[in-house]
Amino acid sequence: MTQLGPNRYGKSAIRLVKVVRDGPTHRIRDLTVAIALEGDFARAYADGDNSLVVATDTMKNTVYAFAGEHLTGAIEEFGAVLGRRFLESEQVARAIVSIDEHAWSRIGDAPDAFVRDQASRRTAIVTSARDSVAYEPGIADLTVMKSGKSAFAGFPRDEFTTLPDTDDRLMATKVNAVWKYTGSTEFDRAHEAIRSTLLEVFAEHESESVQHTIWIVGRAIVDRHPEVDEVTLTMPNLHHWLADLSPFGLPNDRSIFTPTTEPHGLIQGTVRRD
Amino acid sequence: MTQLGPNRYGKSAIRLVKVVRDGPTHRIRDLTVAIALEGDFARAYADGDNSLVVATDTMKNTVYAFAGEHLTGAIEEFGAVLGRRFLESEQVARAIVSIDEHAWSRIGDAPDAFVRDQASRRTAIVTSARDSVAYEPGIADLTVMKSGKSAFAGFPRDEFTTLPDTDDRLMATKVNAVWKYTGSTEFDRAHEAIRSTLLEVFAEHESESVQHTIWIVGRAIVDRHPEVDEVTLTMPNLHHWLADLSPFGLPNDRSIFTPTTEPHGLIQGTVRRD
Amino acid sequence: MTQLGPNRYGKSAIRLVKVVRDGPTHRIRDLTVAIALEGDFARAYADGDNSLVVATDTMKNTVYAFAGEHLTGAIEEFGAVLGRRFLESEQVARAIVSIDEHAWSRIGDAPDAFVRDQASRRTAIVTSARDSVAYEPGIADLTVMKSGKSAFAGFPRDEFTTLPDTDDRLMATKVNAVWKYTGSTEFDRAHEAIRSTLLEVFAEHESESVQHTIWIVGRAIVDRHPEVDEVTLTMPNLHHWLADLSPFGLPNDRSIFTPTTEPHGLIQGTVRRD
Amino acid sequence: MTQLGPNRYGKSAIRLVKVVRDGPTHRIRDLTVAIALEGDFARAYADGDNSLVVATDTMKNTVYAFAGEHLTGAIEEFGAVLGRRFLESEQVARAIVSIDEHAWSRIGDAPDAFVRDQASRRTAIVTSARDSVAYEPGIADLTVMKSGKSAFAGFPRDEFTTLPDTDDRLMATKVNAVWKYTGSTEFDRAHEAIRSTLLEVFAEHESESVQHTIWIVGRAIVDRHPEVDEVTLTMPNLHHWLADLSPFGLPNDRSIFTPTTEPHGLIQGTVRRD
Repeated sequence: MTQLGPNRYGKSAIRLVKVVRDGPTHRIRDLTVAIALEGDFARAYADGDNSLVVATDTMKNTVYAFAGEHLTGAIEEFGAVLGRRFLESEQVARAIVSIDEHAWSRIGDAPDAFVRDQASRRTAIVTSARDSVAYEPGIADLTVMKSGKSAFAGFPRDEFTTLPDTDDRLMATKVNAVWKYTGSTEFDRAHEAIRSTLLEVFAEHESESVQHTIWIVGRAIVDRHPEVDEVTLTMPNLHHWLADLSPFGLPNDRSIFTPTTEPHGLIQGTVRRD
Repeated sequence: MTQLGPNRYGKSAIRLVKVVRDGPTHRIRDLTVAIALEGDFARAYADGDNSLVVATDTMKNTVYAFAGEHLTGAIEEFGAVLGRRFLESEQVARAIVSIDEHAWSRIGDAPDAFVRDQASRRTAIVTSARDSVAYEPGIADLTVMKSGKSAFAGFPRDEFTTLPDTDDRLMATKVNAVWKYTGSTEFDRAHEAIRSTLLEVFAEHESESVQHTIWIVGRAIVDRHPEVDEVTLTMPNLHHWLADLSPFGLPNDRSIFTPTTEPHGLIQGTVRRD
Repeated sequence: MTQLGPNRYGKSAIRLVKVVRDGPTHRIRDLTVAIALEGDFARAYADGDNSLVVATDTMKNTVYAFAGEHLTGAIEEFGAVLGRRFLESEQVARAIVSIDEHAWSRIGDAPDAFVRDQASRRTAIVTSARDSVAYEPGIADLTVMKSGKSAFAGFPRDEFTTLPDTDDRLMATKVNAVWKYTGSTEFDRAHEAIRSTLLEVFAEHESESVQHTIWIVGRAIVDRHPEVDEVTLTMPNLHHWLADLSPFGLPNDRSIFTPTTEPHGLIQGTVRRD
Repeated sequence: MTQLGPNRYGKSAIRLVKVVRDGPTHRIRDLTVAIALEGDFARAYADGDNSLVVATDTMKNTVYAFAGEHLTGAIEEFGAVLGRRFLESEQVARAIVSIDEHAWSRIGDAPDAFVRDQASRRTAIVTSARDSVAYEPGIADLTVMKSGKSAFAGFPRDEFTTLPDTDDRLMATKVNAVWKYTGSTEFDRAHEAIRSTLLEVFAEHESESVQHTIWIVGRAIVDRHPEVDEVTLTMPNLHHWLADLSPFGLPNDRSIFTPTTEPHGLIQGTVRRD
């Protein structure tokens, strides 16, 4: 009568800080890791038989145990090492390791004091199977704004349309970007370069809409970075409405805005290498 | 060189309260709505041509404009009406309307005063295309606990396994359930009945693991509710660790626990009618 | 040149679940506890001398160690027991114990399964000194709404006033109430009764403003509950703006509203026994 | 029988973005403002008489109306201008204006594109009365860490103490700092300088405890900045526990840590000029 459909399980929100002590000068790695496994787990569901269930507590322990030896480079590499480990269990078909990295900056030139004052974060999803490993790095929660070169006009009007056309609006968004590499690469260098492209093109282009921005930014990322197969950009439109100062007899030439979060536009698109 | 892949756009976090005034006695509907459209929008991305882009501001206006006449029954029905409306635009292939409803209870027998004191909420995703409409109702953030009839034992042990077997643990989870109806139904009645099944079976069954719980609860929902095609249950394992009072010479026979949220297990599975 | 001013320290967000096993039928206590101490701690600041610093880790341990024997009644009583314990250290002048309790309801008549589906919570601040103990119980995050009997008119108008007078508005707020008892009392019974008064009077009264509502609700609490010395009510005004449907030629007679959280009014007042 | 005690009211979460267009190059001001008034408002509470109640909607309008002409310098100055305005109403005795400013950085050298990627924010509370104005600027949510020069030892031990002494622990905290100026000053310059002192001294000092850190950082702020009368520092102790890798036979010499947020220490102290 009933059967088990898609399923996965794992451990989320595994928080890990590693202090790398290269002599008196330290470096900080600050990660939040999530593990999910897919595979031959039907008996755990249907029969309550745990003999093939890698405990999520063991997953967590593995992350901490591996951090000493294996967290030496990019989060993409650490994710791949963890994935391989979980695939050592025969019943595991796919291991999906998601890692967020939070940046700490040195305070001045202090060897052992740091500030974490960045709202955005670097992300990576590494999906490992027996014959493949796929890297989906990204950037989360990067809030940006254009106070010029942003329009929205020429859209269809029906009886419920009240928004006027504008050739100069303020556009703000909190970018989430996830891309795919064709294979392994120099992950740290690539990440820096893609982040720079994203910001630079966002700043320079003339936007006709958030959709248009997604295309232009996404196309630049694919065009300029041959290691990138495709990129998915998610951009909420964090509306900034021009404050109506006319009741007070005051001018407001695109100067005073009310930022809002509810409701917000939400636009998502993928740009792929052809 | 580059092409547009999957894309969608719309308006999220549209908040709406409707006061239904049936004489002196009022009723409250409190919804958060999100609209997403898919269709022929490639030119908006690639050419900055907005001539087919239904403005997300228009979507928001449509929700408010329709609420008076069309928000009279279940959120599933309101979602379907909204979907049909957006499909009137030829370029729209699919409209995905997501609605969360927040319950308000009457204070005593007051005709016009209410309390909103429920942490969980009713949800519905209605996906409309020209030849179909699909209903995916659900419940979000329903926190439940079993202080008995919950075990976790017999899982594999490797060098990183430290968790002991237990035949009596405290299991707590915040359930997110989403199911699919085979067609239209009496949505309100069905929702109430499925919620009852979920809670009742959660309470009564003997759990060998969260996976096992998902199967048993999911199977009961499919078995007892012929309108349900399948159900997807997502259950974080919100660990409650037995506090170690042995350093203080105190007993702790499954009595004093430390609830934690970081890290947590995360188990998801779909149960389908065969 | 510099001196130490007011200071306090302690442990916050101590989460504790106690399963009370009265035979096969269980009960759940779910608390979040915060401890703060004031006293003779100047040397810890100025000299880095920890010899009088009760470790916050010890505070946490004490909460768990005491929960078995001492968490048998109201949170006010548990707070007082903890306060007395910390005062055993001579350097402690005052112990402020804050406890939030989260309610779990039995699922049906299950002996060992529970649902936590309440957004509001019971609170208590117990301040213990050598010669006194003060109880400040309360309710946090109780969201309520009046769809009738709520006005706001007759306020002063200046060149920046655009809000029209209204004799029938929707008023919604998330109540935080904290009161003081003259001494010890039957805490559980008193709490239930005061909560009922708050809801009942909120529902029944004719409100001229949130300020007015605070007075009427606060006065009723003080008048009807002789154990209450004073009550402080904090009520954000969670504005619900009437949606403007006139561009669509649609009526909207106090029916369709847009709830907002930014900005919100914030009104606070204390009502005292004379 | 009952009387009104302390009370205040106002508008919170007023969000405001100002685009300053100095030719083609823009600057962004991004503020969240809260207004609270105290004064002769008893009749609003006790009689429902709104004739002296400045509407919170008017407060909001005033913020937007004033932003054009008056938001040209530091948030402290804008707060003072707003305070004076509200004091023009005779019944207002004190106006408390709280402003948070969120920093936007130019993307590269773009004249009209910005990134908001800072987790901390600048704050100011300006309290205006007829004969005085008090400035309490600050920094909120500045997360910092010491991976060296941090100890905690020599604290008293009782039967519930399990924490070992340590002369080298990882200390992390999210600083909230609020200080008072003796009068007006060059607010922007002073803020920059105090922030630098805070970070520099946090980095350099040898900490015996969070209390000790508060004293050393606070004293430096008061000593080095003659315009500062006193500073209140609130520092949660965001524990990073050394991961126990001994079950796996792995070393962990202060390298792999588990950051936690529940529970956390919470230490607060004021340092004053003598």
